[in-house]
Amino acid sequence: MRMHRKPWAKHELAVNSKIVHDPQQYKGNWQAYFGNTNPNHLELGCGKGRFISQASLLYPSVNHIAIERQTDVLAMAVRLADTMGASPAFINTDVKYLPELFAPGEISRIYINFCDPWPNRKKWAKRRLTHIGFLALYESLFDGSGEVFFKTDNRQLFEFSINQFSEKGWILRNVSLDLHHSDWEGNIMTEYEEKFSSRGNPIYRLEGYYERPQ
Amino acid sequence: MRMHRKPWAKHELAVNSKIVHDPQQYKGNWQAYFGNTNPNHLELGCGKGRFISQASLLYPSVNHIAIERQTDVLAMAVRLADTMGASPAFINTDVKYLPELFAPGEISRIYINFCDPWPNRKKWAKRRLTHIGFLALYESLFDGSGEVFFKTDNRQLFEFSINQFSEKGWILRNVSLDLHHSDWEGNIMTEYEEKFSSRGNPIYRLEGYYERPQ
Repeated sequence: MRMHRKPWAKHELAVNSKIVHDPQQYKGNWQAYFGNTNPNHLELGCGKGRFISQASLLYPSVNHIAIERQTDVLAMAVRLADTMGASPAFINTDVKYLPELFAPGEISRIYINFCDPWPNRKKWAKRRLTHIGFLALYESLFDGSGEVFFKTDNRQLFEFSINQFSEKGWILRNVSLDLHHSDWEGNIMTEYEEKFSSRGNPIYRLEGYYERPQ
Repeated sequence: MRMHRKPWAKHELAVNSKIVHDPQQYKGNWQAYFGNTNPNHLELGCGKGRFISQASLLYPSVNHIAIERQTDVLAMAVRLADTMGASPAFINTDVKYLPELFAPGEISRIYINFCDPWPNRKKWAKRRLTHIGFLALYESLFDGSGEVFFKTDNRQLFEFSINQFSEKGWILRNVSLDLHHSDWEGNIMTEYEEKFSSRGNPIYRLEGYYERPQ
């Protein structure tokens, strides 16, 4: 996401209590961070953050955590959470560091919304967040089973993703090739999704379910 | 497929040598029927038959068998095979009778092209040829492993099918959400596909792979 620099972003991240500083210290101990025994759901790349704030308002019996590596965008997400009265936890990090932040079993669901499709070039395939390499990383965060809820507007990325989930032995459910014209309910629109789908383009969605082999 | 009655159809089916009469007699013995040890590929519902004839010309080291329950349509398929100089075997039957015609292991690939989507009504879902009930039937024809190559222009049927294949534990490969604008090569167009896609509508395709659990 390209945007103007936010001179206030650094300060916001430093002082806002929804930002988790030194998140490594909570590895294996996130229930203590939240002060409850709720399951933890994680959004990868929350952007401006409307999705994660809305999800946390809709499902108060779940702990919501969002990561975002771009500080300026994350600062906007934190401010939006304040405005909406939502309390997800935000971490300024990259997906690759997740195993340093969460012990196996600490995450039960992952949301991936409109991630970078890394189009065209085969050598970039492994950077896509639905590449089997990343699926293996997600498996390491789950406790025997877990799920990924994935949305994209990119057809090639969606085709690629179906193949990857399936190849890795995950079960696909509730696949939709035109989410806004399906009878699936409960969709939370991201900022990007609203903008993109208003042009009439389809939104693709799937749920991938992992079960550790017995 | 709705069409005018063909008064010559019954005679054509009676005399054309590409029609297999009493196919039950070849159960467990199809290699004898073809006089070779080639793998057998089967198309379900061949319609006017261009696909199966073209496939049999393109892949001479495979035995091609097509079933079609509508006699008038099948008669046209047989005549087209004559015209094209192709030699698939045709059977006038319904999918549900397949276990009476083929022993386990006699089929290695099944083609399903633009089958009836049985839209809208949930009670009809089990009539769709990609329903898990039919996938179980196909598994019974395979020898430990086998594959289904599936095409449709019906979005809802394709979504349904992805879910069914995945739920049954099959691996999905080469999924395409717009076959004619993908880089997948080797597509054999059916009559229906040509007509439908010329209107600019996308064609969906997937390959489902079954491996019997060890």
